[in-house]
Amino acid sequence: MKVGGRAYRSIWLAEDAKDGIGAVEIIDQTRLPHGFVTRRLETLEEAATAIREMWVRGAPLIGATAAYGLALALRADPSDANLERAAEVLIATRPTAVNLRWAVEDLLARLRPAAAGARAGLAYARAAEICDQDVAINRSIGGHGLGLIRAAWEDGGRARPVNLLTHCNAGWLATVDWGTALSPIFQAHDAGIPVHVWVDETRPRNQGASLTAWELGQHGVAHTVIVDNAGGHLMQHGRVDLCITGTDRTTAAGDVCNKIGTYLKALAAFDNDVPFYVALPGPTIDWSIEDGLAEIPIEERPGAEVAEIAGVTAAGAVTRVRLIPEASPVANPAFDVTPARLVTGLITERGICPASREGLRALYPERHNQ
Amino acid sequence: MKVGGRAYRSIWLAEDAKDGIGAVEIIDQTRLPHGFVTRRLETLEEAATAIREMWVRGAPLIGATAAYGLALALRADPSDANLERAAEVLIATRPTAVNLRWAVEDLLARLRPAAAGARAGLAYARAAEICDQDVAINRSIGGHGLGLIRAAWEDGGRARPVNLLTHCNAGWLATVDWGTALSPIFQAHDAGIPVHVWVDETRPRNQGASLTAWELGQHGVAHTVIVDNAGGHLMQHGRVDLCITGTDRTTAAGDVCNKIGTYLKALAAFDNDVPFYVALPGPTIDWSIEDGLAEIPIEERPGAEVAEIAGVTAAGAVTRVRLIPEASPVANPAFDVTPARLVTGLITERGICPASREGLRALYPERHNQ
Repeated sequence: MKVGGRAYRSIWLAEDAKDGIGAVEIIDQTRLPHGFVTRRLETLEEAATAIREMWVRGAPLIGATAAYGLALALRADPSDANLERAAEVLIATRPTAVNLRWAVEDLLARLRPAAAGARAGLAYARAAEICDQDVAINRSIGGHGLGLIRAAWEDGGRARPVNLLTHCNAGWLATVDWGTALSPIFQAHDAGIPVHVWVDETRPRNQGASLTAWELGQHGVAHTVIVDNAGGHLMQHGRVDLCITGTDRTTAAGDVCNKIGTYLKALAAFDNDVPFYVALPGPTIDWSIEDGLAEIPIEERPGAEVAEIAGVTAAGAVTRVRLIPEASPVANPAFDVTPARLVTGLITERGICPASREGLRALYPERHNQ
Repeated sequence: MKVGGRAYRSIWLAEDAKDGIGAVEIIDQTRLPHGFVTRRLETLEEAATAIREMWVRGAPLIGATAAYGLALALRADPSDANLERAAEVLIATRPTAVNLRWAVEDLLARLRPAAAGARAGLAYARAAEICDQDVAINRSIGGHGLGLIRAAWEDGGRARPVNLLTHCNAGWLATVDWGTALSPIFQAHDAGIPVHVWVDETRPRNQGASLTAWELGQHGVAHTVIVDNAGGHLMQHGRVDLCITGTDRTTAAGDVCNKIGTYLKALAAFDNDVPFYVALPGPTIDWSIEDGLAEIPIEERPGAEVAEIAGVTAAGAVTRVRLIPEASPVANPAFDVTPARLVTGLITERGICPASREGLRALYPERHNQ
């Protein structure tokens, strides 16, 4: 999507690459929204740092960065030993990242049998393919979601913008391009449908206030930042037409695990007859579980994420401040589970379905016997 | 309640006062939670500054401070002219504060007919009475709410602490002592019932993370600060026994206007069969309206409250930082309305009643014909 009028992906091959082989560039997302800084990755070690230091985040983008990390390693030394070492270095950067491990193992399986001289080229080609596949999935999610936004616009007699609400950041920065929840919104905007997005701040890490607001602003999409407390009030007063969020994990029965606070917005949407949709790529469905509340363990993250926050001072310095009394304990559950009964529908790359076992199986029939 | 082991009210006559006449002391609440600073008010002007600069906040405390402000004015000059001037100065500090106007007009009506020489004494006596009445009301609210906490404790076989959740700050700092929503909690703690309070941060002004957490910590009540997004998840997992919040305005039908985000917690409580109580002094019931959603206008506050936040740096300096992109607009509705259907009961100084017209009229029969 656009930054300052220019189209970007979240990861790309540097302009001076030759025959598809060269340095890779990314956006340092830790500097957003107060600074837009791109970084050039020349080596495996630089790619590993980018993942470890969270210059890149979001499962698909981490996977893509790992794939390019292997390619960078093989550009320098395509030996068997270096291939295995590079894989270990990358997996160790964020050991619990499923997409990262998947991408590294996918490349390993393709590269081990290849001649050393061919490996770098193959790795770059596969990394590019992984990126393009992610973009295709997200574009497809957006196309299906666009239909919902268009319908809401037409229901309103094309007389006023469609008001959407989203939580956290499921935008293009978390993927290679388009994003999941924001993909329908970007596509509606690009199609000339007037949209306005209520952006939940999304405490404690403020991904909404920092990343989603920045993405929308840079692409020219009208939006307003609100505290997480405000969405219910807006829905009570008819100021939200449609909610769309992303998800980290969806069960086979349609329960949705997403950033903490999603459940509260789904309750408010249900109470006010506002449609509540969740956008997701099919591969994030966990077919092995049904009951999200009982079966999904919720990560408890460091209390400092709640107790402290970073922002920019009037003088322009990015500074961290403490918000609560020194002696007060903090709890910081990172996700919650929204039961399927509160979800109007799931927007996937294959179309939209009810958040239910039957709905999901109709879209993914090959999973029927699992 | 206690601060550092010593009992305080939020406003008190200085120790060196003679015959009930002298300087008044308050806590500078703008310095909390990072510093505990008391201030001595010697003059009308100092009392007006305390209200205007929000060193004191909360309707009952503002009213009490205004009453003492008049007393301080009359101590210096008990003339008719000074009485009227002092009333004007005080009312202008926060023109929309209902309790402030009420307190000033109450004192004016009593002092105008009095001899100049008697006025200061009368004013101090009435200010003390206003404080004591507030304390009595809040103590009574706490006594009734204590019954709910005790029942929850006994329901759990006295085997584990009672887990409460509260939003914003309805504690003793907003009143003269005890508070409203926190009064039952302080009383349960003082009665030896083990309690633990989940403290909603309460964005955007963070009154929970700063004031409620500080109050509870100073009085020795076990508590944990959470982001506003987390309460629903905790209720889904059985980690909240009882919610108690305050209210700014309650309709004759039991709809509750309170700090933004209260509605979301009430929805989650309802969805998880967690009792949701609202504590209030009878005088805050607005008998002239029924439908809170339709009839209560919601104050829209400055966007800077969302876009920026103050905290303390590692070096100990209180600093303000910006959280969102420069170009992003912000909306900041300050309150929301929780419909009576989501409220288990109202805790008043006269007892607990259903959040309904019938419930309220049974407790306040003198309002029956209004």
